[in-house]
Amino acid sequence: MKIIDTPEEMQKQARLLIQSGEDIGFVPTMGCLHEGHLSLIRIAKEYADAVVVSIFVNPAQFGPNEDLDAYPRDFERDEKLCRETGADFLFYPTPQNMYLDGHSLWLSEESLSTVLCGASRPGHFRGVCTVVAKLLNIVMPDVMVLGEKDAQQLRVLRRMVRDLNFPVKIIAAPTVREADGLAMSSRNKYLTPAERKEAVCLSRSLEKAKALFAAGERDAERIKAAMRAVIEKTSGRIDYLEIVDDETLQCVSKLENPALTALAVKFSGARLIDNAVLR
Amino acid sequence: MKIIDTPEEMQKQARLLIQSGEDIGFVPTMGCLHEGHLSLIRIAKEYADAVVVSIFVNPAQFGPNEDLDAYPRDFERDEKLCRETGADFLFYPTPQNMYLDGHSLWLSEESLSTVLCGASRPGHFRGVCTVVAKLLNIVMPDVMVLGEKDAQQLRVLRRMVRDLNFPVKIIAAPTVREADGLAMSSRNKYLTPAERKEAVCLSRSLEKAKALFAAGERDAERIKAAMRAVIEKTSGRIDYLEIVDDETLQCVSKLENPALTALAVKFSGARLIDNAVLR
Repeated sequence: MKIIDTPEEMQKQARLLIQSGEDIGFVPTMGCLHEGHLSLIRIAKEYADAVVVSIFVNPAQFGPNEDLDAYPRDFERDEKLCRETGADFLFYPTPQNMYLDGHSLWLSEESLSTVLCGASRPGHFRGVCTVVAKLLNIVMPDVMVLGEKDAQQLRVLRRMVRDLNFPVKIIAAPTVREADGLAMSSRNKYLTPAERKEAVCLSRSLEKAKALFAAGERDAERIKAAMRAVIEKTSGRIDYLEIVDDETLQCVSKLENPALTALAVKFSGARLIDNAVLR
Repeated sequence: MKIIDTPEEMQKQARLLIQSGEDIGFVPTMGCLHEGHLSLIRIAKEYADAVVVSIFVNPAQFGPNEDLDAYPRDFERDEKLCRETGADFLFYPTPQNMYLDGHSLWLSEESLSTVLCGASRPGHFRGVCTVVAKLLNIVMPDVMVLGEKDAQQLRVLRRMVRDLNFPVKIIAAPTVREADGLAMSSRNKYLTPAERKEAVCLSRSLEKAKALFAAGERDAERIKAAMRAVIEKTSGRIDYLEIVDDETLQCVSKLENPALTALAVKFSGARLIDNAVLR
């Protein structure tokens, strides 16, 4: 596995791969890798000849009061995991190399980004779209693998790829969960032991929603009330808990088309997200 | 010369060219081609194996009170000129193919775009950056040739390519002028015969600036006053007339570093722009 730390060198390597006819698979990450990320790398290997993993904690997608500085970083461990999982290139640029002096170009998604995490985290998806556009131009992948855990991010980036005609196919990978159902996340380690036990409430509330939907319930308010009841038994504070149209991300009251139910819950140590599609 | 009207087909052709090892040169235009555009095509041919010309009157870069509907269009003539000048592909998409229903992704350049034409035409460079990002992803060129006549556009797009790491090299081509010095523009045909004669005032004012600069004048206000005097002898109304730093596009009072002098003048039939670098 080759470690590359500048955009110029990564782009050069990507050109060489393309010229030699190899398909490039790409897994963008912020590091602190867990089994969820590794599943993305394995999927990328199925679709492509060469797999590039990027590790970049993107300052532009963190708000001024968010956890940029505290975000967990462990490059040595990440490098070992990438190598063991079969990545061919690890792209690990510095913020200074990614955002040059006077950086003044930004992408914004103006529809899907305005709700859910976008409403709670202003500027977050502007940062995500901008860095992923940069990464796509640097890595030039044929396939990019993204996790379904970041449901809104997946939909916003699908929209970006569509609207800007990026020549890449996005593959969505199922959320990987701990034994008790908690979605794997780099932020789980911020939880206190007591909160870690309570954190299963997110996946439990989604299971509740799925069970009600399977039993024929189509009223969004009734499903959300049942989900809220699961969260409210814990110390977690609901940041948002919504049922939205899976295409437009606009709130729905009756579940007629595929719907996304998504929630964010704040514990003392971390804000966690999870989601499920009801169809 | 192959005429292509969908982004999908253009992207497919671009991939084939790349796979066969050919370098792609790209000239984006809004059609109504004149000798200025043809010079860009000829330059692209010097740098690349295959030359793609796009013709797309981009609705997103016109303001609500601008001349989108009136913008001159003559596809048959343009096609003939492209063919004669040696273009290999003519990409001619419809607005519906370029902006799909629910298009919600926009680029914005937040520094260089705020002055000169950007101040007079709010949203213009947002439209320009968005469509050029799309075109770069569709045509996948190694080289893009842009005219120096659109000085601010050239600098904004250079910034876009830098900040978003687009894998393309931008070549700037000198402005092509009529015999009397008027910069060629698709909008010149809107001028009345009397205005056409007066329109030489733009290039004359730039010549005046260059002469003063060559004679040692470094005071921006004095140079601008002399330029304004040239315009004010005509029926043209100055939209802007500025001397700015060539890198940052911020106004300068003393000319110490390379400076861009740029102006826009409104006649009854058309708003014309021109510029020169003083170094």
